[in-house]
Amino acid sequence: MTTTAVTTGTGLDVVAELAAQLRVDSVRSSTSAGSGHPTSSMSAADLLAVLVTRHLRYDWDDPRSPANDHLIVSKGHASPLLYSVFKAVGVVSEQELMTGYRRFGQRLQGHPTPVLPWVDVATGSLGQGLPDGVGVALAGKCLDGLPYRVWVLCGDGELAEGSIWEALDKASHYNLSNLIVIVDVNRLGQSGPTDLGWNLDAYVRRAGAFGARTLVIDGHDLAEIDGALAAAEGDTAGGQPMVILAKTVKGRGFSEVENKEGWHGRPFPPDMAERAIAELGGLRNLVLRGPRPQPVPASHRPAAPASTGAAPPGSADAGGRMPGTPRYAVGDKVATRKAYGDALVALGARDPKVVALDGEVKNSTFALEFARAYPERYFEMFIAEQQMVAAATGLAVRGYAAFASTFAAFWTRAHDFIRMAAISGVSLRLTGSHAGVEIGADGPSQMGLEDLAMMRAVHGSTVLYPADGTSTAALVQAMAVMPGLSYLRTTRGAYPGLYPAGEAFPVGGSKVLRSGAHDDVTLVGAGVTLHECLRAAEMLGAEGISARVIDCYSIKPIDTTILTAAADATSGRIVVAEDHRPEGGLGSAVIDALLAAGRSGLSIAHLAVRDLPGSGSGRELLAWAGIDASHIAAAARRLTAGQ
Amino acid sequence: MTTTAVTTGTGLDVVAELAAQLRVDSVRSSTSAGSGHPTSSMSAADLLAVLVTRHLRYDWDDPRSPANDHLIVSKGHASPLLYSVFKAVGVVSEQELMTGYRRFGQRLQGHPTPVLPWVDVATGSLGQGLPDGVGVALAGKCLDGLPYRVWVLCGDGELAEGSIWEALDKASHYNLSNLIVIVDVNRLGQSGPTDLGWNLDAYVRRAGAFGARTLVIDGHDLAEIDGALAAAEGDTAGGQPMVILAKTVKGRGFSEVENKEGWHGRPFPPDMAERAIAELGGLRNLVLRGPRPQPVPASHRPAAPASTGAAPPGSADAGGRMPGTPRYAVGDKVATRKAYGDALVALGARDPKVVALDGEVKNSTFALEFARAYPERYFEMFIAEQQMVAAATGLAVRGYAAFASTFAAFWTRAHDFIRMAAISGVSLRLTGSHAGVEIGADGPSQMGLEDLAMMRAVHGSTVLYPADGTSTAALVQAMAVMPGLSYLRTTRGAYPGLYPAGEAFPVGGSKVLRSGAHDDVTLVGAGVTLHECLRAAEMLGAEGISARVIDCYSIKPIDTTILTAAADATSGRIVVAEDHRPEGGLGSAVIDALLAAGRSGLSIAHLAVRDLPGSGSGRELLAWAGIDASHIAAAARRLTAGQ
Repeated sequence: MTTTAVTTGTGLDVVAELAAQLRVDSVRSSTSAGSGHPTSSMSAADLLAVLVTRHLRYDWDDPRSPANDHLIVSKGHASPLLYSVFKAVGVVSEQELMTGYRRFGQRLQGHPTPVLPWVDVATGSLGQGLPDGVGVALAGKCLDGLPYRVWVLCGDGELAEGSIWEALDKASHYNLSNLIVIVDVNRLGQSGPTDLGWNLDAYVRRAGAFGARTLVIDGHDLAEIDGALAAAEGDTAGGQPMVILAKTVKGRGFSEVENKEGWHGRPFPPDMAERAIAELGGLRNLVLRGPRPQPVPASHRPAAPASTGAAPPGSADAGGRMPGTPRYAVGDKVATRKAYGDALVALGARDPKVVALDGEVKNSTFALEFARAYPERYFEMFIAEQQMVAAATGLAVRGYAAFASTFAAFWTRAHDFIRMAAISGVSLRLTGSHAGVEIGADGPSQMGLEDLAMMRAVHGSTVLYPADGTSTAALVQAMAVMPGLSYLRTTRGAYPGLYPAGEAFPVGGSKVLRSGAHDDVTLVGAGVTLHECLRAAEMLGAEGISARVIDCYSIKPIDTTILTAAADATSGRIVVAEDHRPEGGLGSAVIDALLAAGRSGLSIAHLAVRDLPGSGSGRELLAWAGIDASHIAAAARRLTAGQ
Repeated sequence: MTTTAVTTGTGLDVVAELAAQLRVDSVRSSTSAGSGHPTSSMSAADLLAVLVTRHLRYDWDDPRSPANDHLIVSKGHASPLLYSVFKAVGVVSEQELMTGYRRFGQRLQGHPTPVLPWVDVATGSLGQGLPDGVGVALAGKCLDGLPYRVWVLCGDGELAEGSIWEALDKASHYNLSNLIVIVDVNRLGQSGPTDLGWNLDAYVRRAGAFGARTLVIDGHDLAEIDGALAAAEGDTAGGQPMVILAKTVKGRGFSEVENKEGWHGRPFPPDMAERAIAELGGLRNLVLRGPRPQPVPASHRPAAPASTGAAPPGSADAGGRMPGTPRYAVGDKVATRKAYGDALVALGARDPKVVALDGEVKNSTFALEFARAYPERYFEMFIAEQQMVAAATGLAVRGYAAFASTFAAFWTRAHDFIRMAAISGVSLRLTGSHAGVEIGADGPSQMGLEDLAMMRAVHGSTVLYPADGTSTAALVQAMAVMPGLSYLRTTRGAYPGLYPAGEAFPVGGSKVLRSGAHDDVTLVGAGVTLHECLRAAEMLGAEGISARVIDCYSIKPIDTTILTAAADATSGRIVVAEDHRPEGGLGSAVIDALLAAGRSGLSIAHLAVRDLPGSGSGRELLAWAGIDASHIAAAARRLTAGQ
């Protein structure tokens, strides 16, 4: 690897050479891989060449430095360009670029992911890098109080995603003058021209209307780029984000493809690559770095992952509870959504890294309690669930433990963002309230009936579904230190407390609430259906049928030990009841676990919401769906009839 | 029920009385139900009173008339207002309004759904009614060639959803001057003031920047409203959609709640309702109707559901194939995504109601073939998957069979829209290409690994996953007449044809590709893993292990008969391999079916993508994930070892 020549104050003549090198390396790396997006890289090469040499304040030897600026390439398919930049600053070798790009087991993936230490978030699903950047900028402006800037390189095509406008709306609402967006307006998308082409005025009007300062530049004029980036850095008094609209040419620098359709996502064949490299002036091997950030106090260094270690482990009580955790009595009715709010306030008191977000339903999810207690750590995302997940992702990048909440049904709005956050490997803490038909009168649009399936299928996720206040409080606490996506499903109605304050609820565990020496059948529930299972067990008990009842509060990971023991004890007879569609939820989790554990001889009755609900009372709808106590008891009777 | 007095040309003095009646009825219905949103209804009562009496061209006795204007209440929580309108035009009775609203088994649900014949689409997940309206307007402008208008009532809070801006972008791109959006800017959201409050200028700038004509009015001045609606109807030469920004007061007409926080989604207690009704001037019982549409030719009447009956059933060949269906030979390599494009072109030739949409990846999904063949029936949605589903929904409302395509991974972006389309009960035909790790070098952001779980959990869905060209062509044909959501998963790479042209592939069926009198184990695959199963069976055969191989091309509904027969024949030993996460996909579908059929004694090896992939070749990644032939064979050996 070339010895690093650290340089600052690079002149534009050298930057021009660097830009040519970035183009050449983009061509070489994609041709060597046989796939990739050289032309999308070439349009933005001048932009990044100026940025990294003269404006981005970044310590390439310490990518975790809290003082660093952030660079997010929202148009993730320009990975050849980004990796060529990494080579140019001396952190990726020529060999890695030429033999590692897009290869199996290598870190220079087709689209950037944080397996690379200089990448904050995975991009490649368009329209997400900017929303993520808003989250990082929110941390910088509102929490860290540090002067780092967040630079986001967007493609023009991705400006068709509504999430971009959610992002700019929040960026201006929160006065994120530390956010600088550079749009590579190269006019050509994957399969044809973009909606707006080179109509830069239209982009200016849109970005301006959403509260941004705007500048239009020739994205291949280095001096213009330099001036725009300097202007973006300079005038931040107005508190507005900056959007620089750079008119560029796709494939810039190689006349055979410049501004031509049909070259998106196509590497050049070797002979063509040779001609491109020749036209670009041949190989170069510059190693240049730009300005370094000002040092910041060590206290600003974020822990990775999100710190919630403010209180040492020894301060927990016997049940693992931390001081201030809300206490609920057995039998007292409390909605789990209320317990979520209470527990979040308690967490917030312990750890200043805990922050909360909500999508304008905070009085329903009870995030309102946190917003009132710690207004400076609460971020209203209004009705923009995609941006809410992206903001939580960006906050996680900066080491915050962000808890975000909305109705369970509305997390479907942000599914792609949740999926990408999992690829980014950030810790994301989501709560979905108003789960299932239990909500009653509001009707199907408000009923979360697919959320468990969605969340279980996300890589590395944890899915929790408590049935009372005590377990909710314990699980919220557990989420604070959970890696990856953790999802908590809460219920609208208030149901009796089942567990004494202080009881422990390990993730991956379950509770046997009722059992005997000779149980006939196992009833598995979670959330509202657990209460129905308990009532069913009462009914069955009166008929001489002994039912074991399991609170499956941890759906992923699931308590295979307790479930298999119950299956074995009750001759494989299990009723699972869930306020969710039959596919992919609690029933699937239970069945998958039992089969994976090698259990055969199962007789499973799976009660779930199999038809389209309407309005009604919660009780009417639980009965209609066939998931209330009487249906659970009936299913148990059928299973035990042949006993 | 009151005898209907059909009126047109209602004077504004009478409209004022009607507006008061709508407020009173909104108060009464929500108080009687004990839930609902009276204040959100009261802010928009003047707007709808003017619209329905003087501008909306609608034959209330014939809601399916193709000549009718469309009215979509995007702020679906204003259901008391909409239902009060239905009473006022004489299609809902006083009794139904007062005893049916939000009650179990009734059609006046908490948020409107098409169980009511005057409701086009379900609303209640905010930011969706306008995008759906864009789809309806697209049909009117580009396909039907009819002069109906699409009126959409939006809340101001929902303008925070990015989907609103995707919608306006497409509305202006397609010159939808037949789309008129009325925004009820009442300043207050659910849990506090909206982002922009009464900053109507900001909304004007935004809507204008996205290509709309705009008007700002006092939303309680009937003459101003009337003038604005007339202006919206009048000047359509510019081809722009119209956005009317109406400044309103939440709770208007009842001084105790007017413009006050804390009254969102709260019915008034009975004593308060009495005071409200008194202040509003007491009960009224006006029955008024507005203008009727011009009659249109009978040929314009859309079939319900989407017509694809242009060719009579008798014209199919023995395999149920329609003329023009593409033919692929056994053994010839063809990518199923390519077969999708071919089959769609064939369908398009048969039936002018078939239309296609894509999210700017049409050269990858092969929707490009349709776009080239029938450019007038292809709608480019650019990179806006939410709008793509909404447009397909709106097109379905007008009787078109819309096929929409993007990468499987990117359907997660539109999950909430897919969920709501299912509640709307429309037929939605989605294709997701580039499924699974098989895509290789592009990396995890582009790999659809959660789509089967997502689509299976949607109410009433059909999930298809063909492995070759012949089966793909047959299933695309089947989708054309399928009610509800149908989803087709396609694969990037080309694999050998397995079936002769003309073979039938009933939805809910499967194919046994290999079987013998004494099979030891069953291998279940779909798409790319079916090819791996076939290779595995070859390997196993050479070792004396006889494997039955099942092509599970229909994942929902699934072929329980063939699967249980195979389980019975192979002593419950089944290997399922899928290029998808382990949760909620093919494996779940197979296991659920076997357990629901009462099969016990199962020994199932479930091979799926259990870790986070990176880049690589398709073959490398199938091996890495443990879902290629050698892993399938190894799993089969383990299952049969104890035989």
